[in-house]
Amino acid sequence: MNVFFYFEEVRKKQPLVHHLTNWVTIYQCAQVVKSFGASPVMAHAQEEVCEMASIASALVLNIGTLTSDFIESMIKAAIVANKRGIPVVLDVCGAGATAFRDEMCFKILDSVKVNIIKGNSSEIAKIAGEDVSTKGVDSGEVGADIFEVTKNLAKRRDSLVVATGVNDVVTDGGKTLVVKNGHELMSHVVGTGCMATSVIGTFAGAAPSNLLEATAAGLCCFEIASELVAKKGAGPGTYIPMLFDEIFKLDENSLVSMKRIEQ
Amino acid sequence: MNVFFYFEEVRKKQPLVHHLTNWVTIYQCAQVVKSFGASPVMAHAQEEVCEMASIASALVLNIGTLTSDFIESMIKAAIVANKRGIPVVLDVCGAGATAFRDEMCFKILDSVKVNIIKGNSSEIAKIAGEDVSTKGVDSGEVGADIFEVTKNLAKRRDSLVVATGVNDVVTDGGKTLVVKNGHELMSHVVGTGCMATSVIGTFAGAAPSNLLEATAAGLCCFEIASELVAKKGAGPGTYIPMLFDEIFKLDENSLVSMKRIEQ
Amino acid sequence: MNVFFYFEEVRKKQPLVHHLTNWVTIYQCAQVVKSFGASPVMAHAQEEVCEMASIASALVLNIGTLTSDFIESMIKAAIVANKRGIPVVLDVCGAGATAFRDEMCFKILDSVKVNIIKGNSSEIAKIAGEDVSTKGVDSGEVGADIFEVTKNLAKRRDSLVVATGVNDVVTDGGKTLVVKNGHELMSHVVGTGCMATSVIGTFAGAAPSNLLEATAAGLCCFEIASELVAKKGAGPGTYIPMLFDEIFKLDENSLVSMKRIEQ
Repeated sequence: MNVFFYFEEVRKKQPLVHHLTNWVTIYQCAQVVKSFGASPVMAHAQEEVCEMASIASALVLNIGTLTSDFIESMIKAAIVANKRGIPVVLDVCGAGATAFRDEMCFKILDSVKVNIIKGNSSEIAKIAGEDVSTKGVDSGEVGADIFEVTKNLAKRRDSLVVATGVNDVVTDGGKTLVVKNGHELMSHVVGTGCMATSVIGTFAGAAPSNLLEATAAGLCCFEIASELVAKKGAGPGTYIPMLFDEIFKLDENSLVSMKRIEQ
Repeated sequence: MNVFFYFEEVRKKQPLVHHLTNWVTIYQCAQVVKSFGASPVMAHAQEEVCEMASIASALVLNIGTLTSDFIESMIKAAIVANKRGIPVVLDVCGAGATAFRDEMCFKILDSVKVNIIKGNSSEIAKIAGEDVSTKGVDSGEVGADIFEVTKNLAKRRDSLVVATGVNDVVTDGGKTLVVKNGHELMSHVVGTGCMATSVIGTFAGAAPSNLLEATAAGLCCFEIASELVAKKGAGPGTYIPMLFDEIFKLDENSLVSMKRIEQ
Repeated sequence: MNVFFYFEEVRKKQPLVHHLTNWVTIYQCAQVVKSFGASPVMAHAQEEVCEMASIASALVLNIGTLTSDFIESMIKAAIVANKRGIPVVLDVCGAGATAFRDEMCFKILDSVKVNIIKGNSSEIAKIAGEDVSTKGVDSGEVGADIFEVTKNLAKRRDSLVVATGVNDVVTDGGKTLVVKNGHELMSHVVGTGCMATSVIGTFAGAAPSNLLEATAAGLCCFEIASELVAKKGAGPGTYIPMLFDEIFKLDENSLVSMKRIEQ
């Protein structure tokens, strides 16, 4: 698949990516979208989420610091997104850590159409009904086969499912892509998972007609930039500012030569 | 005008700048104030905003991630600020994107005295009653003449009005200053608008007797530091940490030689 | 005392550090914990704080952007933490600035067991009942002797008390340790106080059987990393990313040779 094509689509279409996300990595999520040339907007008040979703190209929901009110706003925004046919991405951040997180994820999934369900392996396994435990927002052990788990969840929910890890599995239940880019450094940085979700929303908003490829392309670009940052000797702190610089400078050469996506 | 004079006033008086601002760029807003040598404080609970405003030198209101409750807190704080005669700055962040944002801006402007109304060109045009559309929190096209728009708004609201862009227009309706500093890189960074507002609040708090010049001086210093960062090869990620370093190191030489303010 | 021992305990035990903290420095608090090799989690909804606290190794409470609801969540989480015997750390951020902050601090201290009370000198003096004024969240002048103030507070509350400043006083009322590491640059950076609290929570979670030494060790490591950053020429902006890199790279050599802790 042609990653550069999707990268260019983002720059051309500059999608407005409406976020309801957590307070921890909200700046990083906004800046990662902007570094790709798109427009992030963060708005969660119940009085305006519907109108904001009505001018957006994609909706990103991230439950990292959820409250009941916040989930209500998410559902309201997603109803508008569904009506308009723009992609809705849900990061099931911390699923498995508390019953409240699991319940709220299921409430969203049962109330609206989520086009892309995204989490790390243990979060996705939890949402898929596997017996796993999550350590806060960091991934735990997953006994089950992640390919089977993601495919079954994708079929059951009629959604694209993304399980990130050393290899990222992207599947619609039928076709599966595995993104093998990325660097170990990312596991020491707060917010790489959240940013990946915002990037998926950005690429999905720019190319909604092929969510599978757009999602894999977004992850691939984000992780190639991460590899470039690691190569330059960054640690877990300098990673963040250097990442945005590298994303801003990404070009066809690096994307073509560094891409590691398998079917 | 003497930009360095106002810069020095900030360092001498170290104003306490009370913020009710958004959750996206709240760290950047605090650090930009501190880098100039002033004291930021972020406090929004209705139980304490009045007391915090009663010890502050300036009040900065930014509606980036507004809710109804948050606007109530803003109005309470501004009433105290008005009584004490300290400057109130309002960033009409995202005005034009949703009706709720516009209504809340007008509610604040109609309830309390706002000394400085600040936004990008399309946000200010919206607040001035022009027919514009805002793309989330990024500036849209403005058909009307921005000089006329800002002057009329300044007269009608008896406020200083700041419309940022490639050139920043600062006007009290009579006298107008145009700050021509800044760098294209800033448009790729989340939070430059919010930080500019916090800087305006800082300079206004240090020199409340000449808000027009203090505001232009603050913008000028902030944008000269941005130019210095761009000259050193920063991208949109390294811009943020390098900006705070440059602001901290600003001196008379760079301010005098790089200043581009026109009447 | 052996600082490296506690540093290693964090890496080995990788404590989950549950935060209810402010929105300004929440990213920095999470990343500082992660840079030491531990797991931060930020969760404040009343529906989940108890369950999150029930899987955590330490609980960090920081009132920087407090509201009444938020304090309720803190107390709920702390009740669980108390039952389980995991350390509870309270940063009395901004105590002395408003009556609301003081009241909420006392409400927490009177409702649950706080194992470690932490603030800058003027905040701690305020909580100890001294007559001081705090300038927002920055330290004011403290007339009283900080050693006496902290010891008395420690005895009265049966808590460890930490008062940070050029020298950090750590006392349980009987034994006192003074951490003399750190650098003047830290006073120009937003969030050094909050991060120090998160580090204390991390070390306390890894070595709960000796809170006095664990706390001093955490502060010492954090401040040695700060010294290393300052040595490399950082300003108040580059301090943050460089700090996380330095913490990630800390080793026995630097800890042994740079440690300045006195009894």
